[in-house]
Amino acid sequence: MAFNIIGVIGASKADPATMQLAEEVGMEIAKRGAALVCGGLTGVMEAACKGARSEHGLTIGIIPSDDRKDANHYVQIPIVTGMGVGRNVMLVKSADVIIAVGGEYGTLSEIAHALNLGKVVIGLNTWDLERATEKGVPNLRKAHSAKEAVDLAFQTVTAKG
Amino acid sequence: MAFNIIGVIGASKADPATMQLAEEVGMEIAKRGAALVCGGLTGVMEAACKGARSEHGLTIGIIPSDDRKDANHYVQIPIVTGMGVGRNVMLVKSADVIIAVGGEYGTLSEIAHALNLGKVVIGLNTWDLERATEKGVPNLRKAHSAKEAVDLAFQTVTAKG
Amino acid sequence: MAFNIIGVIGASKADPATMQLAEEVGMEIAKRGAALVCGGLTGVMEAACKGARSEHGLTIGIIPSDDRKDANHYVQIPIVTGMGVGRNVMLVKSADVIIAVGGEYGTLSEIAHALNLGKVVIGLNTWDLERATEKGVPNLRKAHSAKEAVDLAFQTVTAKG
Amino acid sequence: MAFNIIGVIGASKADPATMQLAEEVGMEIAKRGAALVCGGLTGVMEAACKGARSEHGLTIGIIPSDDRKDANHYVQIPIVTGMGVGRNVMLVKSADVIIAVGGEYGTLSEIAHALNLGKVVIGLNTWDLERATEKGVPNLRKAHSAKEAVDLAFQTVTAKG
Repeated sequence: MAFNIIGVIGASKADPATMQLAEEVGMEIAKRGAALVCGGLTGVMEAACKGARSEHGLTIGIIPSDDRKDANHYVQIPIVTGMGVGRNVMLVKSADVIIAVGGEYGTLSEIAHALNLGKVVIGLNTWDLERATEKGVPNLRKAHSAKEAVDLAFQTVTAKG
Repeated sequence: MAFNIIGVIGASKADPATMQLAEEVGMEIAKRGAALVCGGLTGVMEAACKGARSEHGLTIGIIPSDDRKDANHYVQIPIVTGMGVGRNVMLVKSADVIIAVGGEYGTLSEIAHALNLGKVVIGLNTWDLERATEKGVPNLRKAHSAKEAVDLAFQTVTAKG
Repeated sequence: MAFNIIGVIGASKADPATMQLAEEVGMEIAKRGAALVCGGLTGVMEAACKGARSEHGLTIGIIPSDDRKDANHYVQIPIVTGMGVGRNVMLVKSADVIIAVGGEYGTLSEIAHALNLGKVVIGLNTWDLERATEKGVPNLRKAHSAKEAVDLAFQTVTAKG
Repeated sequence: MAFNIIGVIGASKADPATMQLAEEVGMEIAKRGAALVCGGLTGVMEAACKGARSEHGLTIGIIPSDDRKDANHYVQIPIVTGMGVGRNVMLVKSADVIIAVGGEYGTLSEIAHALNLGKVVIGLNTWDLERATEKGVPNLRKAHSAKEAVDLAFQTVTAKG
């Protein structure tokens, strides 16, 4: 049987508070027995993997380049795509639910792909989205701590399963 | 020498006013001698291609499925990716500049990819983006008519060339 | 309505005889009014595009990098994939029929993808394939000149249409 | 630190002898402590995953569709690409070395991508390749049993590391 897989997305450079938040998110995911998938590089991705490994969680990095050495030190399973940012959509498709921690435009593309595919995104200090129409963005949900974010993420997984 | 290539993005279903706007955008692009690239399907994509063809412009559709017959009737060059929404990033990379007409989440993913790659997006009734940080989104520019959108798009191309 | 699109595949470095053959293939394709799609780079790809342009044919290059400037001088429509050799399968999917001119391993991957997708490959000095089983490779057909290769290719397109 | 990752490729339908061989290959990989990556579907892919799981190995399936339920029962980590056969090249890039068990055209495309990327392929009842030129295909090596194939594969990994 397949693992539950939680996606963590965020920028390759981040301030210390965001890094701390990402590490806590990784720890909370591992404590609950799920695997973590991310983009496999530095910044938020590395902090989340570090947190997950500190709790003996399984870490998967879907990396943009052709070189598995570009994966951060805490990635156990580097998936080598050679697709550049084209790999973002695969990260989203491979995750049951997404947690966005901070984030730049790459993160926004992943949030958009997730919403487009009907997946839930839990946001921690990330983008607010507003459409010209009045439909709102119900699948983008705010959390205020790592624990709350992972709790919300697991509620989504449980509701589906 | 390669053509100037203008990307038009938008949803596969759209209201009549949005369809009209997309068709005018296609016409304006063709009048200025550029090729139009889009996702190749229905809605905004079809309306833009129809407009471009009415002015004898060249139309390219980067389609998500494995079947070139999924391209709308006005696409002259279907690029068959078989990558689903993974093809969105290629559309963005292949365009000199992007014009977004209306749009749902798929369009948002294309806007995000464009901004991530440093490309300019001209928006017509599309998403507003706001970050938790105060950086703003300078490369996402609003237009209020098809002609203004295409004028802004060509200023970008000229500035680059 | 979409153009007929003929794929030409081959290595980015080739000897003068192979280059000559590729250029003739490009000329023959353009004379018959079809568009040419290739990988967009040097060698066989460039020679085929050069031949097509000398007969005012339309040339499409599906390039592996993120930079449209990597397309050869004779490509009119660069499709920028950023997917490295992952773009090979899209080239194959976008062509009605494939002509292989010489070729290294990248060409072999394209032949294999074409056969896997049920497409016909016309080979000019390219790979011979032999399976452990006795099934043979009926869709890989040998030609002995550029003209014969393009004639065989168009028979395939006509049979389908 | 990342796992050693061995790729197993082969068709989604196979005769009992090939299935048996694939299962043994999976077992031998797991016994040596490496993770197994495959295309995640039925046939050779499923048999190899089943063998690996019987020895408590880690199994990764890089699946072509958008639905993780298409992964076989023995895949623990489904990577959901939505890229169809475009996913083949990622499987190859993500593996340290490839073992081909039997195989149809899809397998041939993976062998070609592997050779193109300079990777070693160990073949068990798979394709023979012959070029018009006399260069040979030194990185395609024959084995005659599951154990010999996995031994050869690990020699490659050790030589690299």
